[in-house]
Amino acid sequence: MNELLTVSWENGAVRLLDQNALPGEMRYLNFERWQDVVDAIRIMTVRGAPAIGATAALGLALAAQQIEGNSREDFLLQLDKAAWSFKGARPTAVNLFWAIDRLMKRARNCEGGIKEIRAIILGDATRMLGEDVDINRQMGAHGAALLPDNARVITHCNAGALATVGHGTALGVIRSAVEIGKKIHVFADETRPRLQGMKLTAWELQRDGIPVTIIADNMAAVLLRDRKADCVIVGADRIASNGDTANKIGTYGLAVQAHYHGVPFYVAAPLSTIDFDLQNGTQIPIEERDPTEMTHAGETNLAPFDVPVWNPAFDVTPANLITAIITEKGIARAPFLESLAALRA
Amino acid sequence: MNELLTVSWENGAVRLLDQNALPGEMRYLNFERWQDVVDAIRIMTVRGAPAIGATAALGLALAAQQIEGNSREDFLLQLDKAAWSFKGARPTAVNLFWAIDRLMKRARNCEGGIKEIRAIILGDATRMLGEDVDINRQMGAHGAALLPDNARVITHCNAGALATVGHGTALGVIRSAVEIGKKIHVFADETRPRLQGMKLTAWELQRDGIPVTIIADNMAAVLLRDRKADCVIVGADRIASNGDTANKIGTYGLAVQAHYHGVPFYVAAPLSTIDFDLQNGTQIPIEERDPTEMTHAGETNLAPFDVPVWNPAFDVTPANLITAIITEKGIARAPFLESLAALRA
Repeated sequence: MNELLTVSWENGAVRLLDQNALPGEMRYLNFERWQDVVDAIRIMTVRGAPAIGATAALGLALAAQQIEGNSREDFLLQLDKAAWSFKGARPTAVNLFWAIDRLMKRARNCEGGIKEIRAIILGDATRMLGEDVDINRQMGAHGAALLPDNARVITHCNAGALATVGHGTALGVIRSAVEIGKKIHVFADETRPRLQGMKLTAWELQRDGIPVTIIADNMAAVLLRDRKADCVIVGADRIASNGDTANKIGTYGLAVQAHYHGVPFYVAAPLSTIDFDLQNGTQIPIEERDPTEMTHAGETNLAPFDVPVWNPAFDVTPANLITAIITEKGIARAPFLESLAALRA
Repeated sequence: MNELLTVSWENGAVRLLDQNALPGEMRYLNFERWQDVVDAIRIMTVRGAPAIGATAALGLALAAQQIEGNSREDFLLQLDKAAWSFKGARPTAVNLFWAIDRLMKRARNCEGGIKEIRAIILGDATRMLGEDVDINRQMGAHGAALLPDNARVITHCNAGALATVGHGTALGVIRSAVEIGKKIHVFADETRPRLQGMKLTAWELQRDGIPVTIIADNMAAVLLRDRKADCVIVGADRIASNGDTANKIGTYGLAVQAHYHGVPFYVAAPLSTIDFDLQNGTQIPIEERDPTEMTHAGETNLAPFDVPVWNPAFDVTPANLITAIITEKGIARAPFLESLAALRA
């Protein structure tokens, strides 16, 4: 399959597939200023926890190239300010923090001068791109075994190639299952309010020739009840050490539906999405976004003028509703506190 | 409160508030040909089970004025053809069939000539408008007692004044509770794909000064989990004799969520919505509508070109997930087969 180049480093710039233009237009944007990469994360030119992490890493590498320090210390101080800008772009996905912290640690531990730090950060950031695809392929291999042949799979939001550097997490599992010869039919929740399921998941699956049907989020319950879906698989933005999982708003409701109907509910995420500093999901910050994401289609206001709107971007699914968490190191099952820690070790 | 005139008879024409233009524009359309009233039901200029019933009744009265028969028998034959056109406009809401059957029975039982039949049908059709508002006010009085003061209520789709001749079913209960001095905050599911919650429910509640917050359908589960909603109340398009309830797609999932979180789930509907001919909900026909309702916002295609879409307009909530059914004759609780039959008697 023709891999999508969601995030890349091109001639000293960060190159992103503009996800706000999909599916109507497939266009790439080049960012030559690191501050513009921060904005690209904020306005969701790039989205999806692993893709945000990779983009922030490249963005920090770009900052390192651009920052001129009077001394190594001054350089690190300015780089740290840039690091905080990236960390402030979006609050929920932990991969962003993980990637930035990893690079800043490398920078501080580097005993060379500014030139050496720049090289180390760029090297590590670009290495992370390849690592992400490798990790997703490993995750896919583990997860593919969980999907029966002819499986009908519900997914929510986009946890695909577009949400990562390539292959995808939840969709990576589906792709890997298809690669080993299984027939899979995907039901893509459209995923209000931003419709990443309709706009991104359906687009990338259609592009790969994997059968997909778009449904409204509120239709999944009927598929589950009527035994027209065999499992649910989603990605994650942050997982607490007990397995509680923050993901796109609507995931929690879908997990309750799956539980009520006795259908397995899987989460596919790299270990970098697990925040071992958090005991449980109540500690995960939930981003609330602009009400116009709900009320407007393009420039058109669909809602009554000035009506209150609640628009949380994520929710937390408690571990007890999750059948298994698929990682690059293997599959974790309850109790997740032990199983996730074992995979990390 | 200033009652909305959703459906009325004006100078020999059927007058409808154009619900496809709301909330941007409040405009009335006059229909002088009965065939155009059939189309108005089909394209959802008017929607909501009781409003469809009332509109079909006026539409048949319009047909009776327009049809010229060579004889009483010929007239009734032509009127019956018009009746079938109305019955073919939309399949799920039973009020449409109920209203048409009631008028056709009156017509056939009338021993006079064409002129008398015309008068009887028009009289009965216009009488049904007033009856609908009376019924909704009775329903409201019964249902208001179920809502605690300061209740935070989730509703789905629009079961308001716009879905009826006036006052509303689910929103009628809320209005009646407000009228007797209770404070109510409504969370309106936006209700994909046509967004009747965002466009109609929020609009009519805002107009009445009843506090309302719009949420995406997939956010309700979090409100229920976090004890930010005290009950759910919805309308119905058709109820089987055992209490199984067809209503807007998404209602079933919402009922599962309410059940899982131990929150009461109420249905408000007139007895004319109960189809005592049906044993259970599996016998209710579910309309599937055009995929473009999902994929398009105005003229803009949001989805990938030519991707499959599933777009059922309704789903069936089994009686075991329903706490109570609020009717104009009182409140029915499980077992509904007995309690609904008792209210009918």
